[in-house]
Amino acid sequence: MSRAYNFSAGPATLPEPVLRQAQAEMLEHPGAGASLVELSHRGPEFMAVAAQTEADLRALLLVPNDYAVLFTAGGATTTQAFLPLNFASPGQAADYVVTGHWGKTAIKQANPYVDARTIASSEAGGFRSVPAHTEWQASPGAAYVHITANETIHGVEFRDVHYPPQRGNGDVPVFADFSSSIASEPLEVSRFGVIYAGAQKNLGPVGIGVVIVRRDLLERAGQPRADIFNYTSHLKAESMLNTPPSWNWYMLGLTVKWMLDEGGVAEFSRRNARKAALLYATIDQSGGFYRNEVDPAVRSRMNVPFFLHDDALDKAFLSESTAAGLISLKGHRALGGMRASIYNAMPEPGVQALAGFMRDFQQRHG
Amino acid sequence: MSRAYNFSAGPATLPEPVLRQAQAEMLEHPGAGASLVELSHRGPEFMAVAAQTEADLRALLLVPNDYAVLFTAGGATTTQAFLPLNFASPGQAADYVVTGHWGKTAIKQANPYVDARTIASSEAGGFRSVPAHTEWQASPGAAYVHITANETIHGVEFRDVHYPPQRGNGDVPVFADFSSSIASEPLEVSRFGVIYAGAQKNLGPVGIGVVIVRRDLLERAGQPRADIFNYTSHLKAESMLNTPPSWNWYMLGLTVKWMLDEGGVAEFSRRNARKAALLYATIDQSGGFYRNEVDPAVRSRMNVPFFLHDDALDKAFLSESTAAGLISLKGHRALGGMRASIYNAMPEPGVQALAGFMRDFQQRHG
Repeated sequence: MSRAYNFSAGPATLPEPVLRQAQAEMLEHPGAGASLVELSHRGPEFMAVAAQTEADLRALLLVPNDYAVLFTAGGATTTQAFLPLNFASPGQAADYVVTGHWGKTAIKQANPYVDARTIASSEAGGFRSVPAHTEWQASPGAAYVHITANETIHGVEFRDVHYPPQRGNGDVPVFADFSSSIASEPLEVSRFGVIYAGAQKNLGPVGIGVVIVRRDLLERAGQPRADIFNYTSHLKAESMLNTPPSWNWYMLGLTVKWMLDEGGVAEFSRRNARKAALLYATIDQSGGFYRNEVDPAVRSRMNVPFFLHDDALDKAFLSESTAAGLISLKGHRALGGMRASIYNAMPEPGVQALAGFMRDFQQRHG
Repeated sequence: MSRAYNFSAGPATLPEPVLRQAQAEMLEHPGAGASLVELSHRGPEFMAVAAQTEADLRALLLVPNDYAVLFTAGGATTTQAFLPLNFASPGQAADYVVTGHWGKTAIKQANPYVDARTIASSEAGGFRSVPAHTEWQASPGAAYVHITANETIHGVEFRDVHYPPQRGNGDVPVFADFSSSIASEPLEVSRFGVIYAGAQKNLGPVGIGVVIVRRDLLERAGQPRADIFNYTSHLKAESMLNTPPSWNWYMLGLTVKWMLDEGGVAEFSRRNARKAALLYATIDQSGGFYRNEVDPAVRSRMNVPFFLHDDALDKAFLSESTAAGLISLKGHRALGGMRASIYNAMPEPGVQALAGFMRDFQQRHG
């Protein structure tokens, strides 16, 4: 087949201009005599890529100067272990708000290092809602409170009203996993202590992550750890304490540049709102043929899980959609059903094609 | 310029056929409708790539069945922190043989978790030799003994005679950093407890590593750690405990396949011996214009550091070699001088061109 519309949850679709540039430069980075994937991370070519990527990411997300930006190997799950190691004392309380699978993963990674407490959870209701910050029962002396801004599997997303006000609950900073919604709408960075994300959803390629840290927090706590687990060491080394995933970093840079060129976060926020509205309307207006059970106020704009009224139709839905050039719609194995991930790089015609297919499929099988 | 001969120490030159295939598949993995960098790591395309890569790597290195193969994010330095976490009890003795910069790094990463002891070192002599295993003063009850098979900066390499015999010193397994020499000559895997390597030197792209582990060692010790730091969890999840660096994994697979097609480790061993012999002969026969001070018995076949008799000539050497299409010859900042890294993917004509340039440069500046 030729290129399809790819609704994968991550690794996820990339902008075609980014892939075309990577393709053109696969054998030689302009003027360098070798591909970037072959060049030293200490050389002038990659150093320029790294500096430009940080500058562009700061411009895209309006990152204030009192925040550091780190580029990391290992992805979001690894960051979830680094957080207590770097920002909590051994056994200190750390608060977690759980709105889906990834919030539970964050606790699992932190547990060996802190007293990880679930201070609010929507699990009893099947992860279909978000507890507002006014309901969170903060622990005295907690190192931080951790949230998952968008739950990729359950399709639940914090809205602005759910975040605590300025700088978290008093002096307890909010640490937020933004893996699947970073750069999808305007975000006030200063309301968070740490914002982190695996890049493979909204920021580009798989194999690299971003951690945005309020600098003063790096000196507040921490526990015995290998130097390679120490964010202060990574910051001093400008994210090159060891050989970084340089090609992935370059791809992240190309993607961020593309987002800036397209109009930045404000423009993607509008596109994402239209894409999500179209899909949810298609579901809600199907008379029950399709259903999404998440509280409409917190439905994810990035990941739209939905179920067919009869799961015996799932197989036909998947094979027919693939044949129609709409791929990777199978839901996560934890939930079943379908899921359409519609990150920044998913063009509006892709979502229109999916909505059209869904209506057509319903007519044929309804 | 067009493609040059790239002597970078890592990230390092890749086989051109590998880059050409990656280029051809950058917009679409064959038949998949999307690039591999955009496809789910749980999907059939990547699962096939992952399985084939492991099978090919096992075939290339003759990995016995009682060894597991893990593909990891984070590179060799991260592995150096994982080793004590997974294979030693808190504070247990762990022995280190230090033959250069990376041996010291390994100790630094391990120190928070074990009583890391330097049981043999060539530092007093400027890291120009390798202490034979008969000289190692093993610690009673040590969890392992760690070596760096090839020191990329100092250009010092263990030869077969330096390794301890069958299964290490009695019951103490040998853990070896093979980042810069894996697959460069035949290796008896069963003499080691752990063999690990960042891929960006001899195995392909930056951004992924390989850890080969004798399975029984996974049950011997270990200490409290996040699940994402636990090799047993990674093994159970087939190296997909979290989203792996899938594109890098694919590139590693292409490179391993290329090595098998070219004749495997036996063939590269012959090529590498010829390449190294030519470069060292060029140095040794220069009448002191060039010099390498490493004990000839342990000179690295992969990284050839050398100095000009007058370092005022360094700048001219670097600019003229670059102009001649021979790039990345600048030595590591810790040593200065020059360094030619000549891994498996460096073709013999590249080394011949460098040797010719060195003789020519000497004629003009000698």
